[in-house]
Amino acid sequence: MGLQVITMKVYRIHEKITKYRFGNPFPTDGVLVKGDPWEKEGMDYFQVEQGTEIRLTYKMDSKDMVWGLGENQRGMNKRGGIYVSYCSDDPRHTPDKKSLYGAHNFMIVDGRERFGLFIDYPGQVAFDVGFSHTDVIEIIIDGTDADIYIIDGEGLREIVRKFFHIIGEGYAPPKWAFGYQQSRWSYPDAKTIEGVAEAFIDHDIPCDAIYLDIDYMEGFKDFTVSEDRFPDFPRFVEKMREKGFRLVPIIDAGVKIEKGYGVYEEGIQGGYFCTDGEGKPFVAAVWPGKVHFPDFLNPEARRWFGLKYKGLIDWGIEGFWNDMNEPAIFYTERGLKKGIELAKQSENENLDMDSFFALKDAFIHMSNHREDYQSMYHHVDGKQVNHHEVHNLYGYYMTRAAAEGFEEIAPNKRFLLFSRASYIGMHRFGGIWTGDNHSWWEHILLNLKMMPSLNMCGFLYAGADTGGFGGDANAQLLIRWTQFSLFTPLFRNHSAIGGRRQEPFSFDQETTEMIRKAIQFRYALIPYIYSEYMKALLHRDMYMLPLAFAYEDEISRRVENQLLVGDGLMIAPIYEENALGRYVWLPEDMLLWKVDDYRERSYEIKRKGHLYLEVGLHEIPVFIRKNKMLIFGNHGRNTEVLDHRELYVVAFIEDRAQYVYYDDDGLTKDYKKEKYTEIRISIERREEDFEIKIENRENRQVKRIHFEMVDIHGNIAKKTVVLAAQ
Amino acid sequence: MGLQVITMKVYRIHEKITKYRFGNPFPTDGVLVKGDPWEKEGMDYFQVEQGTEIRLTYKMDSKDMVWGLGENQRGMNKRGGIYVSYCSDDPRHTPDKKSLYGAHNFMIVDGRERFGLFIDYPGQVAFDVGFSHTDVIEIIIDGTDADIYIIDGEGLREIVRKFFHIIGEGYAPPKWAFGYQQSRWSYPDAKTIEGVAEAFIDHDIPCDAIYLDIDYMEGFKDFTVSEDRFPDFPRFVEKMREKGFRLVPIIDAGVKIEKGYGVYEEGIQGGYFCTDGEGKPFVAAVWPGKVHFPDFLNPEARRWFGLKYKGLIDWGIEGFWNDMNEPAIFYTERGLKKGIELAKQSENENLDMDSFFALKDAFIHMSNHREDYQSMYHHVDGKQVNHHEVHNLYGYYMTRAAAEGFEEIAPNKRFLLFSRASYIGMHRFGGIWTGDNHSWWEHILLNLKMMPSLNMCGFLYAGADTGGFGGDANAQLLIRWTQFSLFTPLFRNHSAIGGRRQEPFSFDQETTEMIRKAIQFRYALIPYIYSEYMKALLHRDMYMLPLAFAYEDEISRRVENQLLVGDGLMIAPIYEENALGRYVWLPEDMLLWKVDDYRERSYEIKRKGHLYLEVGLHEIPVFIRKNKMLIFGNHGRNTEVLDHRELYVVAFIEDRAQYVYYDDDGLTKDYKKEKYTEIRISIERREEDFEIKIENRENRQVKRIHFEMVDIHGNIAKKTVVLAAQ
Repeated sequence: MGLQVITMKVYRIHEKITKYRFGNPFPTDGVLVKGDPWEKEGMDYFQVEQGTEIRLTYKMDSKDMVWGLGENQRGMNKRGGIYVSYCSDDPRHTPDKKSLYGAHNFMIVDGRERFGLFIDYPGQVAFDVGFSHTDVIEIIIDGTDADIYIIDGEGLREIVRKFFHIIGEGYAPPKWAFGYQQSRWSYPDAKTIEGVAEAFIDHDIPCDAIYLDIDYMEGFKDFTVSEDRFPDFPRFVEKMREKGFRLVPIIDAGVKIEKGYGVYEEGIQGGYFCTDGEGKPFVAAVWPGKVHFPDFLNPEARRWFGLKYKGLIDWGIEGFWNDMNEPAIFYTERGLKKGIELAKQSENENLDMDSFFALKDAFIHMSNHREDYQSMYHHVDGKQVNHHEVHNLYGYYMTRAAAEGFEEIAPNKRFLLFSRASYIGMHRFGGIWTGDNHSWWEHILLNLKMMPSLNMCGFLYAGADTGGFGGDANAQLLIRWTQFSLFTPLFRNHSAIGGRRQEPFSFDQETTEMIRKAIQFRYALIPYIYSEYMKALLHRDMYMLPLAFAYEDEISRRVENQLLVGDGLMIAPIYEENALGRYVWLPEDMLLWKVDDYRERSYEIKRKGHLYLEVGLHEIPVFIRKNKMLIFGNHGRNTEVLDHRELYVVAFIEDRAQYVYYDDDGLTKDYKKEKYTEIRISIERREEDFEIKIENRENRQVKRIHFEMVDIHGNIAKKTVVLAAQ
Repeated sequence: MGLQVITMKVYRIHEKITKYRFGNPFPTDGVLVKGDPWEKEGMDYFQVEQGTEIRLTYKMDSKDMVWGLGENQRGMNKRGGIYVSYCSDDPRHTPDKKSLYGAHNFMIVDGRERFGLFIDYPGQVAFDVGFSHTDVIEIIIDGTDADIYIIDGEGLREIVRKFFHIIGEGYAPPKWAFGYQQSRWSYPDAKTIEGVAEAFIDHDIPCDAIYLDIDYMEGFKDFTVSEDRFPDFPRFVEKMREKGFRLVPIIDAGVKIEKGYGVYEEGIQGGYFCTDGEGKPFVAAVWPGKVHFPDFLNPEARRWFGLKYKGLIDWGIEGFWNDMNEPAIFYTERGLKKGIELAKQSENENLDMDSFFALKDAFIHMSNHREDYQSMYHHVDGKQVNHHEVHNLYGYYMTRAAAEGFEEIAPNKRFLLFSRASYIGMHRFGGIWTGDNHSWWEHILLNLKMMPSLNMCGFLYAGADTGGFGGDANAQLLIRWTQFSLFTPLFRNHSAIGGRRQEPFSFDQETTEMIRKAIQFRYALIPYIYSEYMKALLHRDMYMLPLAFAYEDEISRRVENQLLVGDGLMIAPIYEENALGRYVWLPEDMLLWKVDDYRERSYEIKRKGHLYLEVGLHEIPVFIRKNKMLIFGNHGRNTEVLDHRELYVVAFIEDRAQYVYYDDDGLTKDYKKEKYTEIRISIERREEDFEIKIENRENRQVKRIHFEMVDIHGNIAKKTVVLAAQ
């Protein structure tokens, strides 16, 4: 390939944001701001070359770090790896995997220079971040039409905020989606689900939702419910709601090919399916057997599919997870035929090893084959678009279809919605879960490292399968993972068929007890978690952050196993088996609360520096940052019965701290019309005491706040403030 | 299965070692001591049940730890996992893998009670160490004939030593095998190998050996050398020796079925191959295509195969690695036929997912299939033995074949020999490498954790593929891994075909420089490494130990990322990407030497406790324990040209330290006849000075020793001692 610098159009999006446009990009709706044409020579920071692809190179300084890239392997600092944005259904997340389910092309170079970069291109993009050459970033965009955004800024967090301003406000799930959620592939029938619900009640473990994995459907057909296994489904949904549980069904991307099946028939009649090269609906095989894929990029097809959710919504469903939307392909006729042909040719042959491995590989690599994606087409604005070139939009647009459907079906209602595949921009429509991880200790740490990277790409509502999806968890792994996940907005335990059961009560009594306490603590924290989440959305900020986003010292910049959660907390989870404790870096003095039963509180001041912290299996270390506070309440058996008349604040005050406690109805989009409440709290250290000021903006639920304030010397003061009636 | 306690015979092996014999075990020669019958009721520690299998259960205390199990996943503390001893060729060492290449059934329970356990059973043994039930060890022996040894002891190291006394003295490789070794699958011809050798010379990087992976053979036929690619092989071997490099060819287990190929013809004529159920030679396909497997359990076949090495030895070869000896099976007719049948049946079918995955799995799981192992037979003492029941002996006995062959070919010569598959007892014949790992950071840590576990099972000569076999290393990974591996007896860089080159000079100049310094340091350390290795062998001790084997404090017991190396050193390698340092636990005051160029020495005393240690990419932190010393020399381009007339000792002395420096000819087995030399050094702290005493036992090489002695306050004294002429 001959590479050469070519002309590009430059747009000024904002004082500090520049868009470089190459060719005629497919509109992704990743960025909502168009900007104005701008006369400018060359691209900042990068050397650009173009032939049949666009290649960007940047020379790093030896200490430069690179943040971002969302759902990917390796560290928060991405330096040293290759990452390929191409949404992939790969259920073994080993350290060498270059593509997972998401395509999140935003990163920040942080060192000698500091800037953000977003490659808005819906096909494959490869990022070589100092892998091939220790000091070179090389980005290869697999096409000639792309928008590239460069964001300047002083601070890391500032760059992210600017990015969030151009990609738009994130998705707000209903408040119940911040409760604990229980899943398994599969709870196949109503009886099983009732049993699970009863077990939560019997064990006094709070829970808001139980999931319906693929087996709830009739023959894996989207928008159907098996009548055998769920007789009178609407009544069952209602009954579960009465018990305090919402049901969350899965929706897969592929629509089963079956005469008489309404969704299939409508799709055919409407011409809503992706096609093959001959214009016939593209055929792939997934869970239901042969399917067609809805053409979510086509607005009509999108609306059609989005409104299909209405059936389940009318039956009382308020949350969905969209799956298999990379889209995953188990096989196509092409791939199967190729494999079978090879097998037939191998019959009675003394295969040499090349032939044998070619045969074996034909089956191993039959699924999610590039050739299949290249044989599928979308139809947008009268044009035929090859799927491969816009591959990374598929899950995003499926989720957009759902969200736009919900908007039409129940305009002001918030639904739980998250997806497996994603692209930047999808955060406006739903969250994500990190797909089919494993019951590996290493995956707790991966989960931890991924969270801030996802946050940087807009995905605040996110979480991993707690306990691990594939493989078998042991009790300790589930305890430790739960103790971490309780801080993630999406807090779901999910496991795969054939693997060990991993509901909180699936192990011994002591384990159940420890997990109960961790989940109860989550519910106690909901005032904080919800407040921080919603403020992050509204202020275009992150919810989970690397330490480097708040502390500039060299150690904080490199910490890969601690996180900041919202405004006030730092967490340092245990992610190693049989560990009795761990090392923690404190970038400043902090107040440590080792939570066992959250109703029993005791604090220790830990001084700035390195710390070895003993952590019992029953303990969750929580650090409250200096001049910050943590607000929480009491737990309840689900989010709806939480009683927030009394709240608690633990504050660690050197001189003064301020906190804005946000709340809203948790169910509607009225918060967008500024219909939310705030309690603004400020605490000031006085000579012998603390002065608390409270400004209550419309909150009618909270009646009293109990304060525990610790000063830098460890002096504790307790006060209770009664809020004036509103 | 109905389980019941059955009678067993009890033998007293030693005051503290008891053997419990069930049924009529197949002789493994794992243990060399028979012991005397003993009247004893019941088994100590364990509850035993027997039906069609033997099941042992032990109730653990909450703080009990479990050490050992050799080549396995997870921590040094094995608690929490399931481990299945069944030698397996599985090239993806993810945390969930229960079987790797070795079957090492020795463990130590360490807590409320402390004892060792060795299950001497050559078939499958499963260890559930607190996985299914947090506090239960359950061991299932897949048969009714087994010897179980229980070893009592006060200390962990004492238990290991007792175990080593019954399994026999370990294998001593030649001294050159402690040099750096370079491998790749493949250096396919003489020219490539010469190029690699030249590159080592040009880059001034010491190296003792270059490996010949499978492509050196003619059609993958054992004991052949391709004449095309290696014209005049003996001359080539000689020429490489002149340049300072030994060549180490691979030998695979399977013998190609090919008319006229001598090894095949002899095997057929002698009846030396394993058979199928009908008594015909068992056929499997591996690298050469169809092969037979030599019946290494049959003494005649073993001798025949062992003497086959003579051809290569006569051509000047002095070292071998035995591979594919689980034995790995790519496919058999049975498995291939089954896959092809399924494929044919699938033609033109609309497969449901069960059928599709059954088809895919038939190919994915075609290799190393249990059914194939169950269809293969050995012939021992006139009896037919099903391979599956003695599966774990195969690699061991192949390596024994080689070692017994060497003994006959050149009785007093030491050969380099190591194997992929192994069983306890094989350590008397050769070492092991840990198989096909990956270029994953996680695998540096796995390598570190595995080393002491392997040591506990007798395998002192061991090491992993430095830089990782599968996948692609980046420069930093190779640097960090090399900085760890330089302490392992087997120090080899190996990588797979299709992956990135990872010789020390394959990256940028700075990387080459850092790796050069690390390898030069290895060569400088050879006096220490060789001395410690040989003393460990002769004293039935370990070379690499968990901290817990020397320090009893609760933190040391749990440290999973530091090791003791020999008598004097503690190491704390960096195994995380982009890390600027790491945390280290110091169980006592130690002397830290951050090695860059080992000729430039500077020390710091680090006090007992937790430490955050900054470690530059060019630095190798080495801790010298209190009242211990480190002896070393200067590097050379290979082990043969090392000049040890001047040695250096760095000692960290509170009151006194003693060290025995061992050396021998490094080539023969004369050390077994006490033909070795010792320099016994003792240093005593006097009021203002140190007193050095040296007792030279026969060493004629060392003329002078330069001492640097640091006392507990950091005072340094330097002295040079001239050794009296011997």
